[in-house]
Amino acid sequence: MLLVAPGNGEIGERLAEELADIEGRFAAELMSDLPCVNELVGHVERYRGKMLRPMLVLVSGLAASPTGRELTDGHRVVATVAEMVHMATLVHDDVLDDALVRRRGETVNNLRGNETAVMLGDYLISHAYHLCSSLPSPVPARIIADATNTVCEGELLQLANRENWALDEPTYFEIIRRKTASLCGTCCRLGAIMSDNGSPHADALYSYGEKVGTAFQIVDDMLDLTGTLDTVGKTLGRDLDKGKLTLPLIHHLRTVQPARRARSLAMLGDADTTGGGGSSPREVVELLNSTGSIAYADQAAHTLITDARRLVQALAPSSARELLLEMADAVVTRKF
Amino acid sequence: MLLVAPGNGEIGERLAEELADIEGRFAAELMSDLPCVNELVGHVERYRGKMLRPMLVLVSGLAASPTGRELTDGHRVVATVAEMVHMATLVHDDVLDDALVRRRGETVNNLRGNETAVMLGDYLISHAYHLCSSLPSPVPARIIADATNTVCEGELLQLANRENWALDEPTYFEIIRRKTASLCGTCCRLGAIMSDNGSPHADALYSYGEKVGTAFQIVDDMLDLTGTLDTVGKTLGRDLDKGKLTLPLIHHLRTVQPARRARSLAMLGDADTTGGGGSSPREVVELLNSTGSIAYADQAAHTLITDARRLVQALAPSSARELLLEMADAVVTRKF
Repeated sequence: MLLVAPGNGEIGERLAEELADIEGRFAAELMSDLPCVNELVGHVERYRGKMLRPMLVLVSGLAASPTGRELTDGHRVVATVAEMVHMATLVHDDVLDDALVRRRGETVNNLRGNETAVMLGDYLISHAYHLCSSLPSPVPARIIADATNTVCEGELLQLANRENWALDEPTYFEIIRRKTASLCGTCCRLGAIMSDNGSPHADALYSYGEKVGTAFQIVDDMLDLTGTLDTVGKTLGRDLDKGKLTLPLIHHLRTVQPARRARSLAMLGDADTTGGGGSSPREVVELLNSTGSIAYADQAAHTLITDARRLVQALAPSSARELLLEMADAVVTRKF
Repeated sequence: MLLVAPGNGEIGERLAEELADIEGRFAAELMSDLPCVNELVGHVERYRGKMLRPMLVLVSGLAASPTGRELTDGHRVVATVAEMVHMATLVHDDVLDDALVRRRGETVNNLRGNETAVMLGDYLISHAYHLCSSLPSPVPARIIADATNTVCEGELLQLANRENWALDEPTYFEIIRRKTASLCGTCCRLGAIMSDNGSPHADALYSYGEKVGTAFQIVDDMLDLTGTLDTVGKTLGRDLDKGKLTLPLIHHLRTVQPARRARSLAMLGDADTTGGGGSSPREVVELLNSTGSIAYADQAAHTLITDARRLVQALAPSSARELLLEMADAVVTRKF
């Protein structure tokens, strides 16, 4: 399901067509002469979800376009590339997290083994760069690769902080800025500069995307604790199982009374969200609510969205600008 | 240890300098502001081995250069990129193969977990494309990405044929053409076209690289069966453990007397090369020798090298051409 409907009226029709075009480019780029490869790719295409990153490219492109309605082939290529990079990170994240379910389908690693999932993710990354270097200038590929460098650093920083119960908030924000927000910001910047190479809005749109991406990740982390498999559509509680500390936990461990901290650590370290003993998901959420830590994380996401909205409100009024505002709101109101 | 010394006299000195320069570019590209990332990269740099792919770029570049001595910044960038892509595949292959030892050091997956190895491989791939798109033209990046698409297809085709005891020789050659030979051929082609965009030698050098790469993989597969940990420097016998059929096995199963085939399958399927029961490496080698299957694979590698030599003998005489011949020979005489 898309994060937001592509808008009403002319822009809505336009974007629905553009997104369909991008799905076509995605499939065409990944087509192989080997049936075994196409079968795996078909499986990944079923992961297709919110299309947040292509939407960020396209809507930023429209918002920065002098006429408010021009999109180029470059926008479509970059939007497809961004989705392909994102899909690759999902496939590799599933290996990382040993996740069993994503978007209501079995994950590649569960179905075919971690090794196939690693190689399929590599196939997606390789095709993303292959497609991006079909553009006449190497600049977008360089900018995308700079973002993916940063995404990998974020993932490695997160892995280095596994089971680090003393993880502080600045480091958490550094992790999610790199692993999620940088690619979202880059989508917006590329959308802007493909419309107008010297766009005066490129920096503001980058910051908008970065803030939206950060809020998106905070909400994702919260849904991992508070969501249900049925609405979120992927294995939950994995962050805690894997020793990944997220904002509500960091806040809780910072604010819990010193006398109760040891008990919290024992409960969290012991949390077994797969239902086989240890602390249950409900116990963990109650623990976090006892210090207002879920509400704290929710507030942090809302503040980022307020800031993101302010950045795009500085743009000239347009239906694209309205859609950027709507997308920002959807990030914090979503239940999936 | 390099596959071959970079040659004697002027070309030897020149290449030794170029390889040192490439090591510097490799390290500079991968430098992060995060200490945890640099520590992992330092670990990978110790994998550095034969430098076959950078040598293919540089020596092909010299062989195709009108003066026989010009190399450009583009050659150095592409050579560094090729080595970085290769390192990424080593890191991800170690995840695939659950290998414990590579180049006499612990592998990243063994030391830090598969998850870190997946992300570190992604970091290397991302930086390879990042570096490649620093070139003024997107063409080399497009060609490299085309090769990495093919490499991933080869790995996926291999995984799809795991435990396929009926794997035939054409499919084996298709796997290694894609997973190994395509990148080697691409290194040679890029070396040539960076020297002379319309180089009349680009196709012949591609074929040379493809044949050398194919022979290299056949020898690698043989060393996995017949080598010793001490000389090869990585965990051996893993192909069989993982159900990967290689040329000697395919030949054996095709040529063994029908009455003995079931016994061979039982022995190979049962092979335990880690020393804990099942068929020993020596028993497997004896079985393969009973049908001349090791000699058959060795002959196949030598034939490829003869063909590869013939292709470069058509070039004008130069010390670079001599070095290409020497590199081809080293692929089949190596013990590591």
